[in-house]
Amino acid sequence: MATQTLAAWTVSLSYSDLPEEVIHAAVRSFYNIAGCIVGGSRHTATITARNALSPFSGPPTSHLLGTNTSTDAMHAALFNGIASHVHDYDDTHLDTIIHPTGPVACALLAIIPTLSRPVSGPEFITALVAGIEAECKIGLAVWPAHYDVGWHITSTTGSIGAAVAVAKLFALEVGQVAYAIGLAATQVTGLREMFGSHAKSFHPGRAAQNGLIAALLAREGFTSSVEALEAKRGWASVVCSGGNRLEEEIAGLGSGRWEIVRNAFKPFPCGIVVHPVIDGCVWLHGELERVGVDVADVEEVVADVHPLVLELTGKTAPRDGLEAKFSVYHGGAVGLLLGKAAPAQYEDDVVLDKRVVALRARFIAVADECLRADECHLVVKVRGGASLEKHVDYAVGSLERPMTNEQLTAKFVDQCVGILGEERTDKASQWCWNLEHQADMGRVEGML
Amino acid sequence: MATQTLAAWTVSLSYSDLPEEVIHAAVRSFYNIAGCIVGGSRHTATITARNALSPFSGPPTSHLLGTNTSTDAMHAALFNGIASHVHDYDDTHLDTIIHPTGPVACALLAIIPTLSRPVSGPEFITALVAGIEAECKIGLAVWPAHYDVGWHITSTTGSIGAAVAVAKLFALEVGQVAYAIGLAATQVTGLREMFGSHAKSFHPGRAAQNGLIAALLAREGFTSSVEALEAKRGWASVVCSGGNRLEEEIAGLGSGRWEIVRNAFKPFPCGIVVHPVIDGCVWLHGELERVGVDVADVEEVVADVHPLVLELTGKTAPRDGLEAKFSVYHGGAVGLLLGKAAPAQYEDDVVLDKRVVALRARFIAVADECLRADECHLVVKVRGGASLEKHVDYAVGSLERPMTNEQLTAKFVDQCVGILGEERTDKASQWCWNLEHQADMGRVEGML
Repeated sequence: MATQTLAAWTVSLSYSDLPEEVIHAAVRSFYNIAGCIVGGSRHTATITARNALSPFSGPPTSHLLGTNTSTDAMHAALFNGIASHVHDYDDTHLDTIIHPTGPVACALLAIIPTLSRPVSGPEFITALVAGIEAECKIGLAVWPAHYDVGWHITSTTGSIGAAVAVAKLFALEVGQVAYAIGLAATQVTGLREMFGSHAKSFHPGRAAQNGLIAALLAREGFTSSVEALEAKRGWASVVCSGGNRLEEEIAGLGSGRWEIVRNAFKPFPCGIVVHPVIDGCVWLHGELERVGVDVADVEEVVADVHPLVLELTGKTAPRDGLEAKFSVYHGGAVGLLLGKAAPAQYEDDVVLDKRVVALRARFIAVADECLRADECHLVVKVRGGASLEKHVDYAVGSLERPMTNEQLTAKFVDQCVGILGEERTDKASQWCWNLEHQADMGRVEGML
Repeated sequence: MATQTLAAWTVSLSYSDLPEEVIHAAVRSFYNIAGCIVGGSRHTATITARNALSPFSGPPTSHLLGTNTSTDAMHAALFNGIASHVHDYDDTHLDTIIHPTGPVACALLAIIPTLSRPVSGPEFITALVAGIEAECKIGLAVWPAHYDVGWHITSTTGSIGAAVAVAKLFALEVGQVAYAIGLAATQVTGLREMFGSHAKSFHPGRAAQNGLIAALLAREGFTSSVEALEAKRGWASVVCSGGNRLEEEIAGLGSGRWEIVRNAFKPFPCGIVVHPVIDGCVWLHGELERVGVDVADVEEVVADVHPLVLELTGKTAPRDGLEAKFSVYHGGAVGLLLGKAAPAQYEDDVVLDKRVVALRARFIAVADECLRADECHLVVKVRGGASLEKHVDYAVGSLERPMTNEQLTAKFVDQCVGILGEERTDKASQWCWNLEHQADMGRVEGML
């Protein structure tokens, strides 16, 4: 039932069904991921993948954001998808910790230039929303057991979301959409064991490809199962052995609760559990400046945090930027020392910078079960006995304190300006904010 | 430990380590899969996939067996992989029911023409053996729970086997081989729910691609986990929750038990549980002829079979060739009526042929727990009261009654002759049997 219901809902969805807040959330999701793809386009992982696979590239129809290069749609989906996630700076559906926009948007952007017609902003938004709702509803159906057992839920659901979105763009019939869902579901990509390595960002890139190939095959008449998601040995049972809520969640499509409006945006390029500490440390950086204290005189920082923070990000001595994303100590140290934790503060040389290493060593993180995951308490002890405190109730970027459009713009500019230059960055920013009114999404090539 | 052990074993393996029986098994495995790829090259699934994806193809370096076409290595691996499995006629490692050769051989054949040097038969055999041993040892480690929960073990292990084989061909260092294993392991492709649809044959094709992309990325410096297989949330734990024998099986590499010598070859293009019934019915076809009885006068056929036969292949009224593979009734009917069950007897028009439909309806299969899976007992009742019996103790193609080289040749010729013509088929057959002595595997393009 769930597979056919999802397929039928996908086919029937139209732009006019989307409430204003859904469109607003879709624009913000696209805006954020566009900046992330550009920002990730020069990361070693992205460049390594391009170098490894470019000998196999086909007709260069599809633009690689942040570069002057195009490649075939299949490889563009992969490379843009890697770039979208490599800084861990993309969006987060907090109820499932899925990063939903990357796989879906990268599949769509890759295939659009191969169509013989222009795709408008509203059509793009409709397909994007279809894909993101599919990912998140399916993710909710298997959360948290699926993640706990070791699956990277972003890519396991991302393949299916990308297939749904591309199938929507292709205007496939219900039966073909169902086959596309099945073909995506049978490619279960992403083990959490890969976290901390390049392979983590490969996951959403491969998910974009998985979904794209699924929709292309289904369009041509390639068959799969008609009940791929819910069958006795279907996706949900196989990837989540202890039961699931698939039928309930899929039945909830279009019923009023839209998952995309629950999508959040990261102010810092690392796991969200570190965000309260960084948020507080950035504030304390300003406070130390205000009272005229040099950070070199900080003797100790004690951070009371939710236990999950230490479980997920307890690396005390990260050796490079990728490991630093799993270090609450690094996030806190750069926040306090530099007043900022953008991708530049996760470059390898910053991670190994003496001042950063020294400050990390003075950080003590204490698990406190009374705190929520988006809350923390910080005490900075300064030479001479003085101390400063900061309680962060909800971190910036949480649903309670979402990033404003201005903050998203600043994040976009920070990621793009060094790559596109000021003028192009400003133009691209305006173009992306204006997604609803675009007549031709193929123009992304000249913009980003 | 297992990941590094497998990587180190892969690097150290040399042709001179391979016992004669292993080389013999590798040649037979290659010979059989080459015929299957040619035989599957004109199946709807293969053609549909080619049509859907050829707009994205890159430099046409790599041959599609059975056609006059080449495409880029990545797509060649996929299309040849689909063809290798689409008739369910490939090899079977009976202890795990993995079909091991397709994913590995298709990845190797695709990438070889892109190298700047010739690859000899012995080098090919060494890489093929490395990949097949990897697949089967890992498969044994998670068998049967992994299959029972719903994974298509051929492709879930096939990705890793293909990565190992290509990494061997690339002569990667141990650390890079381990990363390639991790990058393959994180792409867990293949749900059994897809059985009976085109997606089933997509699995080994995608597995060949998964392994190929993994080795290409690792060669370029893309990183993954150093303990991808055995970590707490590594491959084995995630895809087989009830425990595994990974370390023991991987430790057994090179210790004397070679899995490839336990590889079997199918005389009939369907699940092996049907083989005893077909084997017996083909014998009974000859017997009916000998005694001068028309098959139209058969009133009833009673087949006592292992219970798994009905569980897996209980379709009484298959609607097309793919469904017929899951029908013991169809296999028995064509065996008795036509004396043969090759791919031609699984064409849609044969499945719907009136005489076949009528005979299928006269078949009764009875589960008998006392019988082994490769055993059956058949009673044919003829109009007028006469009856014939046949007890099949071990079906042809089992390890106890393996297909002879002559039978493999007949199977090869049957698959190739309609596609390559007689002369090319004979030449190709000789060339494949002579694998050990080939100087340049790139010549496959002119042969098959």
